[in-house]
Amino acid sequence: MATEAETADEADAYAELTERLERVTAIQGAGGVLGWDQQVMMPRGGTPARSKQLSVLSSMGHDVLTDDRTGELLDQCEELDLDEDRAAVVREARREYERGTAVPRDLVEELSRTSSEALSAWEEAKANDDFEAFAPHLETQVELKREYAEHIDPDRDAYAVLFEDYEPCLPLERAEEILTELKETLVPMIDEIRASDADVTTDAFSGTFDTDAQEELSRDVLSTLGYDWDRGRLDVSTHPFTSGNQFDCRVTTRFDESDPLGALMATVHEFGHAYYNLGLPREHYGTPLGESRDLSVHESQSRLWENHVGRSAPFWELVMPTVREHFPDVDASVEEAYQSANQVYEDNLIRVEADELTYHLHIVIRFEIEKALIAGELDVADVPEVWNEKYEEYLGIRPETDAEGCLQDIHWSHGNFGYFPTYSLGSVMATQLFDAAEDDIDDLDGEIRDGEFGDLQDWLRENIHRHGAKYETNELVKRATGEDFTADYFTDYVTSKYGELYDLEESV
Amino acid sequence: MATEAETADEADAYAELTERLERVTAIQGAGGVLGWDQQVMMPRGGTPARSKQLSVLSSMGHDVLTDDRTGELLDQCEELDLDEDRAAVVREARREYERGTAVPRDLVEELSRTSSEALSAWEEAKANDDFEAFAPHLETQVELKREYAEHIDPDRDAYAVLFEDYEPCLPLERAEEILTELKETLVPMIDEIRASDADVTTDAFSGTFDTDAQEELSRDVLSTLGYDWDRGRLDVSTHPFTSGNQFDCRVTTRFDESDPLGALMATVHEFGHAYYNLGLPREHYGTPLGESRDLSVHESQSRLWENHVGRSAPFWELVMPTVREHFPDVDASVEEAYQSANQVYEDNLIRVEADELTYHLHIVIRFEIEKALIAGELDVADVPEVWNEKYEEYLGIRPETDAEGCLQDIHWSHGNFGYFPTYSLGSVMATQLFDAAEDDIDDLDGEIRDGEFGDLQDWLRENIHRHGAKYETNELVKRATGEDFTADYFTDYVTSKYGELYDLEESV
Repeated sequence: MATEAETADEADAYAELTERLERVTAIQGAGGVLGWDQQVMMPRGGTPARSKQLSVLSSMGHDVLTDDRTGELLDQCEELDLDEDRAAVVREARREYERGTAVPRDLVEELSRTSSEALSAWEEAKANDDFEAFAPHLETQVELKREYAEHIDPDRDAYAVLFEDYEPCLPLERAEEILTELKETLVPMIDEIRASDADVTTDAFSGTFDTDAQEELSRDVLSTLGYDWDRGRLDVSTHPFTSGNQFDCRVTTRFDESDPLGALMATVHEFGHAYYNLGLPREHYGTPLGESRDLSVHESQSRLWENHVGRSAPFWELVMPTVREHFPDVDASVEEAYQSANQVYEDNLIRVEADELTYHLHIVIRFEIEKALIAGELDVADVPEVWNEKYEEYLGIRPETDAEGCLQDIHWSHGNFGYFPTYSLGSVMATQLFDAAEDDIDDLDGEIRDGEFGDLQDWLRENIHRHGAKYETNELVKRATGEDFTADYFTDYVTSKYGELYDLEESV
Repeated sequence: MATEAETADEADAYAELTERLERVTAIQGAGGVLGWDQQVMMPRGGTPARSKQLSVLSSMGHDVLTDDRTGELLDQCEELDLDEDRAAVVREARREYERGTAVPRDLVEELSRTSSEALSAWEEAKANDDFEAFAPHLETQVELKREYAEHIDPDRDAYAVLFEDYEPCLPLERAEEILTELKETLVPMIDEIRASDADVTTDAFSGTFDTDAQEELSRDVLSTLGYDWDRGRLDVSTHPFTSGNQFDCRVTTRFDESDPLGALMATVHEFGHAYYNLGLPREHYGTPLGESRDLSVHESQSRLWENHVGRSAPFWELVMPTVREHFPDVDASVEEAYQSANQVYEDNLIRVEADELTYHLHIVIRFEIEKALIAGELDVADVPEVWNEKYEEYLGIRPETDAEGCLQDIHWSHGNFGYFPTYSLGSVMATQLFDAAEDDIDDLDGEIRDGEFGDLQDWLRENIHRHGAKYETNELVKRATGEDFTADYFTDYVTSKYGELYDLEESV
């Protein structure tokens, strides 16, 4: 007797698959709203019910995705002669399905439980500067994630498999080449900057800055950049983040009375993430054609706005009058503000406080350590020592405590090995994309200075956002820029910009 | 071969049933958060994605509840010798399951779709005072709801079946007796009030009241009443509502510059709803033992705080200093404020603006009309005329437009026939409960005057909240008060309170 699957006709199989994907998206989207609420609105007593709600949603989304019926539909769709769009949907769904079905539910649940315990342990260990208390939890995450990778593909390097959870369509080798290039460019450049006697203004924004006024400034800047308030919100959370889809994508930021620059740059960064999601095709909501490409592409959008717009000289010409409106006591010139926003923090140990240059060395250190941990070439117990040595070697500084060293980031407590590289890849990609946009737009600097962001927005919509996840990462970059993904533009950009700022010899 | 169901042992069946109920609660709770967000936080562009998310959650919750496995587990559990708590869980789950499985999915979806269309049509019809434009939609809702009731029980009165969606464990006959008693008490009393020449202050709060200060006042009053801010929030929405569970239960209110009393009473009302949910046993979250009883009991909690605390003389003694802190221009005395908060709006046509007395005649009119509509004794086309006649007969006023007549409420566009009576039943129940609390607490008036709400809170926790849905409605009331649910206390209460306020002859 023919099964339902065998008798279904072609159009039906594809329609049923997309209906199923839309359901998964809706469940995940509901989880996203609950997550946003938890971080932004929820009273603290709400945790027990919220944890249960999130865990039920997560397992239901997993069930719909990894159901046998999904597999049957994928098999059928792969036999069809689909157009490019539909073939991309099937390709992306297949990848998700394979990853979802490869890992036994027991292991998924064990990872969820242990990472939750590890998170608490990490918070305490960080507060007490006590790496030893965290070490067994980190050990467990390393072991479980090795096991996880083995389930997905026992024949490949485990770290390469893990990396694909965050960046599934860019080979780890390419990522590694780029990170190596960053290291080779930046280590000597930061040495030179440390030795430079250029007079760079660092304190254009010193003093106390009322947080209400900072929020007003953030709102004004979001409006200037083109944030659609009918589809977004700005709120405050401990760590800035973006959450949502093409209909409703919200940003958060955080305000510190002593650091208005940090808040403003965080806002612009999150704007970039949100502007990407808001530019995804509405008619494809629920399928990969209406979803963003993975983490490095997403980070390219936030970094493009943060670094190439928000840290540019024309942006500071544009924004300083608004800054002075909200903070009449600021008497820095545009040039001084620009320099302050671009100063290199040579002595900074903390990744999230880093500048455009040192940032990548923070990432390279994490990348090298986590890769060695997963490969079994580094023991958890040796992480602090290796961490500190690498900081000394690459950045010329050495943490005095593990709290400001290897305990500073949350990622490893979640078992998120392979996540960090996407931060650097995104910044590098942003430079390549922005360079192409500059080529295509007559006077982009002038437009930024005038607060005219239409051409840049159109360029991003046309070349990145409207494609959703249709193209894989390199293909997307190549279509947008005419070239494979490369670090060349980043090297040129930092050499030129920071050469000029710090009077370095290689300055072009 | 024995099926899984047959071999499962008793404890397993009950555990699996509650696990399933907890999952349903989590899904519904997630939907609740999304609903709250939609009304309070969501940018307006978010509707398409949110509608999809809500509809997927709703159908998933329905699927888990009405799955064949739920039926098997219920059958097994009903064979067991369960203790009272567990038997109550099974009883409640059985009721939900039967209702969920009785109605075909097609009809549920048709109701969802047509009520959404009817909602838009109602909004437009109300704005244009055009009942004819709404009539066909109302007709559809009446027909589909008759069909719906027929699926649930073809042998019973359709309206009685519909009423059970909102109040499943109180017979309609009892509800009707109570509504009839309200009508018989209130129609002549309001006539007398209209004829009364008592000098009741109505304008203690006239003028313009800054909405920020109103919000501060609402927050202060919530704190005074004992709202747990670690498990709650106050926000603003078009229509005040309460949303949440024992870990996180949030209230909303609305502010109108010309009506500070309306906002304050709405806040106190929602506090009552929230205080109920927050008092449900935490260890039973997810099963009926951790869920509130149905709508009339819920409304009894909001009305108890709104009417018996918030509109009482001792409350106004307590709260006037705080009112004057926020609004130094208010020069009304405590007695004048009390009178203003209790004035009878004899000429008011709008249910949501009604006082403690006329309110119930608004409800009785809706009840009589919707009952006749479902019974086929009244045509939709005749609703406006019948509505207006009943207003004239019961309240002595006649709407000049349908917008301020039969189009004023949203409920019928949702097909919510049988909902209105729970509002009155709740108020009546509140009076009976408050009377019992007064008997049990030495000097409740004095405690309210002193802002000491501990004894009243304990009484409600002990007699109502901690039981969740363990007892059916009448049983719950009887255990709390020693008597069956009755309107006697309400009659005595209004006769005494309004007799005194308006110098009526029956005044005791």
